[in-house]
This record gives sequence, structure tokens and C-alpha cells, in this order.
Amino acid sequence: MKHVSNRMLNYLEPQMYARFTMLANQKGCVNLGQGFPNFAPPQFLREALSEEALTEQLQYTMTAGHPKLLNSAASFFQKRMGLQINIDKEIVVSSGAQSVLCCLMQGILNPNDEVIVFDPAFDLYRPLIEFSGGKHIGIPIKPKVLNNKEMMLKRYQNGQFIYTNDDEWEIDFTHLEQNEEYNKLAEILEKYPKIIVCEDAAYHHITFQNNEPFKYPRCITHPKLKEKSVCVMSAGKMFSATGLRVGFAIGNEDIIKGMKAAQTYHIFCLNPVNQTATARCLDYTADGLYFYSLRNLYQQQATKLLKGLIESRLNFNYWVPQGGYFVVTDISNIDIPNKYFIQNDVKVTRDFAFAHYMINEFGVVCIPCSPYYENKETGQNLVRWAFCKTDETISEAINRLQ
Amino acid sequence: MKHVSNRMLNYLEPQMYARFTMLANQKGCVNLGQGFPNFAPPQFLREALSEEALTEQLQYTMTAGHPKLLNSAASFFQKRMGLQINIDKEIVVSSGAQSVLCCLMQGILNPNDEVIVFDPAFDLYRPLIEFSGGKHIGIPIKPKVLNNKEMMLKRYQNGQFIYTNDDEWEIDFTHLEQNEEYNKLAEILEKYPKIIVCEDAAYHHITFQNNEPFKYPRCITHPKLKEKSVCVMSAGKMFSATGLRVGFAIGNEDIIKGMKAAQTYHIFCLNPVNQTATARCLDYTADGLYFYSLRNLYQQQATKLLKGLIESRLNFNYWVPQGGYFVVTDISNIDIPNKYFIQNDVKVTRDFAFAHYMINEFGVVCIPCSPYYENKETGQNLVRWAFCKTDETISEAINRLQ
Repeated sequence: MKHVSNRMLNYLEPQMYARFTMLANQKGCVNLGQGFPNFAPPQFLREALSEEALTEQLQYTMTAGHPKLLNSAASFFQKRMGLQINIDKEIVVSSGAQSVLCCLMQGILNPNDEVIVFDPAFDLYRPLIEFSGGKHIGIPIKPKVLNNKEMMLKRYQNGQFIYTNDDEWEIDFTHLEQNEEYNKLAEILEKYPKIIVCEDAAYHHITFQNNEPFKYPRCITHPKLKEKSVCVMSAGKMFSATGLRVGFAIGNEDIIKGMKAAQTYHIFCLNPVNQTATARCLDYTADGLYFYSLRNLYQQQATKLLKGLIESRLNFNYWVPQGGYFVVTDISNIDIPNKYFIQNDVKVTRDFAFAHYMINEFGVVCIPCSPYYENKETGQNLVRWAFCKTDETISEAINRLQ
Repeated sequence: MKHVSNRMLNYLEPQMYARFTMLANQKGCVNLGQGFPNFAPPQFLREALSEEALTEQLQYTMTAGHPKLLNSAASFFQKRMGLQINIDKEIVVSSGAQSVLCCLMQGILNPNDEVIVFDPAFDLYRPLIEFSGGKHIGIPIKPKVLNNKEMMLKRYQNGQFIYTNDDEWEIDFTHLEQNEEYNKLAEILEKYPKIIVCEDAAYHHITFQNNEPFKYPRCITHPKLKEKSVCVMSAGKMFSATGLRVGFAIGNEDIIKGMKAAQTYHIFCLNPVNQTATARCLDYTADGLYFYSLRNLYQQQATKLLKGLIESRLNFNYWVPQGGYFVVTDISNIDIPNKYFIQNDVKVTRDFAFAHYMINEFGVVCIPCSPYYENKETGQNLVRWAFCKTDETISEAINRLQ
């Protein structure tokens, strides 16, 4: 590795998701690992892409984004979230939320700036922070309740599973109810005016039970936090097409300005067809109906997966999702054969041992959660199961776990 | 700018190309500035994108690239350049050559590593080098001959302009002919085994007169340099669609490995429709015929522009292109009214003064070249004119310069 930069030396192996997807394919496993929908994206997205490819100009667009997309996004998020967005100053689009985050870190972090990461956190945050010279500080958060099998069975009634806001993952300061959490955060941040908030809202259109899509409390919609916030969203996640690679950042003008500068050197600009097709999809779905049906689909798949896991021969404890497309289970009750604690001659944490145990003895892929924690031990009893999958895939996984 | 990182503070204003394009639009100028074709991209590209959008899966692809695209690119560059590419190890695709370069700098540069940049160089190299902690050292190069109007008129015969390899921009060490330059470089680099070569070959399919598309001497095709080289290429440039945002890096396995690691955190992966459509275009054009006709078109437009500039009322000197889609003229003979040396209350270099003079008094946009030089003074008598434009655009520009 004589030519590779030091910053990349720890990141040369294929990433966890790629590795587990490769294993799934090699071993004929059911893949509940990587979080991509294995059902078709909406036909209106395909048609929009297909039509725009025939007519849209195919040259450079503005770095901040194609005007059509900026306008459609502003209008969409105004309708669905009540946001007023100045499209010249408060929004930038990039090549998926990953690119948005990359521009964000490059655009705002100076060497040794500290970034508080609420763990579990998407494992790509920490390297991005490091590559921009920042330091990450992991602060673990968790829901009030870890549900054992008995508690879970009680919540499953008449073919429906009950999802509640008591399953919220809480920042660890005293609060009584959901909304107060943001007020408390606003109060604390008033004392520290240099601190800004970056919220990753890639899944905020998938909210269960009585929570409406896009309406979950956010910093970007909080009257006191909005001015110091930037909110990252993903068109790929919204339209069940993780390959679309169109993401948004909306927020404080100053942050967005730094991000646009970073974007110039990062991707320069986005493919206009992908942008104008996304614009059309945003226009088409701005009444919100599509997202109610998508949310209902995901809630149904969550229930299907949870029921299967509860009735399986594995004695998990559960954190119940309030949305998104993942279930996290605690594996501390589960006996894992010793041999799985060594992989390629290296000792691995319990969550990785469990994932390999699942692959080899059950033929199902799940994702270990220790990479989502600053302190790997905090996450070593947690694994993640994706339910953004077809009925057939979830049923087959459940069958294998019985 | 309290939230913007220090690294971005010098880059917050819209970039030169965006600024001059905005000015062109505001003032109704003919835009020979930014290098985007203002004619339609080939219909086969539009159709490939349109058809792939209806059928291709729209989920994450491998970070290094979609297997179809890697295979098609390997086969194309084998046919057209004689390259043998191991698609697992020696190629990565990214979101345009800009993204490729971004991954390259992140993937190989450590803080204080030195990068020799042959000036004039694309102005986005230097910030990318800085953002990865590297130091850039500009080494100016130029052709043997700067042509005055009289010399240019002699080269224009029977409606054709004569393009020759004597117009080559030379690295400043003794050499007799083109090929020897690479041998000399190989000889020097044998003494410095840590040095690698990154060549930006975005335009190597556009080569004039007797030079065949893709066949211009390259480090990546040189027997001794290949192993220490990485070559950056652009599908957008190849298919006259700067908005396609598909670029390639081909080269040393170790460099590519570092780039793939960087890419994971940079864009994660590319849109699969853009990739498989590009694969189809590469397959469709692998016999090279399309690129001969494209090269002929560009040579014709170069001739049209050069003839117009020679016959204009502006007394330029010329460096004659051997390919690509830009002409560089020397403006040292030209009187520029004093008022243009001040822009927004700031004194500007001669090339910027000239560009504003052109916009205001001629209604034509060209691009100042001092940003392409480490030492801005070296480039202050040079401006760049794009000829990747329709007959109408070039004719109108020429009319305005008479």
C-alpha cells in the first residue's frame, strides 16, 4: 500500500454492507442486511427518468442544483413540513445523502473541531468527520424500554403490532414528552452559540402508527433550533430507489454556503436528468398520499418481521422502531458457538460473531451494530434487520429462523 | 461566515465558469467560456439512458462501479488504447472526472505531500490538493511556438487549417520528438520510485490532423510508466454530455484501491442507470467510428474559430491546439481600456480585464487563464475560447469580433 494515503489505510477492505451482501450471495442467504428495497421502485420514478433522458439538456447544471429541482423541493417541503426555503441560500442537492454529508463535513469542520455523534450512528459519519480533520465524540442514546419476548407478544394484537412513541430513542436529559426534548436542546444550545445541529432525516417519511410522514419533530422545524440547523434528506429513500443518488440539505444559509463551496470540488454538479426526474416525482407526490401508502407498507413489513422474530427459536430482546426500515434486536440472551468469535484469524465482537452464526447456521444476513458506536462494546449485543424487503424475502427469512 | 470551515473561505464566491456564464446570460453575450457543448448529445446516449431507466434496478451498486460498466470500459479501452485492465483492481468509476480526481487526492495524498502540477492546469486541481493536505508546485509548460497573425495565415490553406505536433505543450527537458518525452520522464522517475503520475485524459479522444482518437501517447500506455500511473477519463466528454457525470480512473492497483476507499465516503456509489447507459454507449462506439466523426467535427469548429480570430480586429498571438475543445490566445499586443482593470473595486490581472472588455464591448465571453497557473502573472496574457459550440454560436462570436 505504498501509494495509499494514511487516512484511508483503515478503510481499504470492502465495507461491512458490501462484505455481508457478498457473503449472502455466496452462501445463498436471505439478505436482511444492507438497507435497500428489494421491490421495484415506483413506476412514476422510472417514467420520469426515462422521459427526462430524451428531452432534458445533458450539460453541467448549477453546483447547488438544477433550478427545477430546487423549486420542486422547496414547494414539496413547504407543503409536507411547513418549511419556508429560500432556494438561493438555504438548499443544496448532492449525489445522495452520502455526498451531502461529505460536503457538509468539508464545508463546516476545521481541524480538531468536535462533533457530538448520538450513537448508534450511521457508520460512515465517523470517517467523514475524521477526513475533514474533526473529532467525533460518541454519546450513546437508547429507548426507555428494551422489550423481551413476553412484552412483545402483548403488543401484538389482532394481527397488528402496536407501535408507540414510548419507543423513542432519547437524548439523555430529563424530559416528559417528545416535543420537550427539542425545547430542552434549544435551551442548552442557547448557552453555546457556536454549536450547530446536523440532523440526518433520511427516513422521516416512514413514521408508524399515528405519526404522519415528514411530520416527526425536527430541529429544522423547531422555531428556536431552525436557525442553527441543517437537515439532510434523501430522494432515493423517499422513492425506494437507493441508486437514484439525489440528496438534499436544507438549513442555515451560512452552512449551505460552505457546502456549496465544498460541492464544487467534490462532484461539481449532479446529472440533470436525475434532478429533473426527481423534481417531477416531488411534484407528483406533494399531496403526501404516496407517502401514506409507503409508510403503511413499511409498517406492515415491520410487523411481519417482528412477529417472525418473536416466534423464532432465538430469544431476542427488542427495541421497537417508530419508523424507518430497520429493527434492532438485543442478542445478550443468545448462545453463540465459540467458533464464530474468530473470523479470518481475528477475534470479533459478539454482534459480528452472531451475524456469522446466522449466515452459517440459519442462512440469514443481519448487520452487526458495534460499528455504529464510538465505544464498540456498547453495540456488541445489537444487530439490525432490514424490512424494506418483499413479503417473500421476509417470509423466507422467518422460516429459516423458526 | 461563522460556520464555514477555513478551507472553504477562499472558495465561497461562485466559481469563475459560473460567474462568466451568468454574465453572458445577463448581457446577451455569445458564450465561448465554459466548456460545454451547446449542441445535442448523441441520440444513442439519450435512448440508452431512457431505456435503462425503465429496466435497470435502481438500488445501490458496488462502490467501484456497476459490473456492466466496468466490463464495457475495460473492453472499450482495450480496443481503443490497447490497455489490459483487471476490472477488480485497476479501474474505478465515479461521478464525473471531478469526483474521480477528488477520490484520487483523498486516496493518495498525506499532509504536506508535494504535487507537481504542469501549468496551465485545470483550476480545480489546486483546491483539491489543498483539501487533502497536499502542496502544489506549479511548473509552467508551453508549446515551442507562439504564432502571430502572419504565421497563422500561412497555416490556413484551401479552407483548411494545418494542425501539427509541433504545437505540443512540452515539459521543459531536452527532447527531440513527442515519444521521447515519455521515455525521458520514465528515466527520471526511475530515480524517484515514490513519485506517481496522474494524467487527466478527459480530451484524449479529440485529437487533430493525423493523430487518432485515444492514441495520443499516454503514461498509462507507456511500458515503463504504466505501473506508476493513473489515467482519468470522462464519459461525459466522450459523449458530448458534460451532465452525464460518469468518469473513470484506470491505473496502478494500489492507487485504485485508495481511490475506492475514498469513494465509499465520497459518493458511496453511482446511479446505476447512468452506468449501464454509459456501458451501452461504450459498447456501441467501441469500433471507434463515432470518435473519428466527433474529432472531425471538433477540428472543423477549431478551424472556424481560429480563422475568425485571425481575421478579427484583435491582434492575438496563438498557441494552436492539437485537440481538445479550446483555443488559447495570447493578448499581450492588445490595448485594454484602463477601466476594465478594476472589477468590484478590486484590481484584476490583464486576462480578467480582457475578459470583461470582451463582454462589455464585444458581447463575447472567453475565460481568463491566470487561474490555471500557480504564478498568476505567467497566465495573465492568456485567454481561452471554447469551440465545442454550434456553427451559429461560433459565427455570431466571430461577427462580433470583426
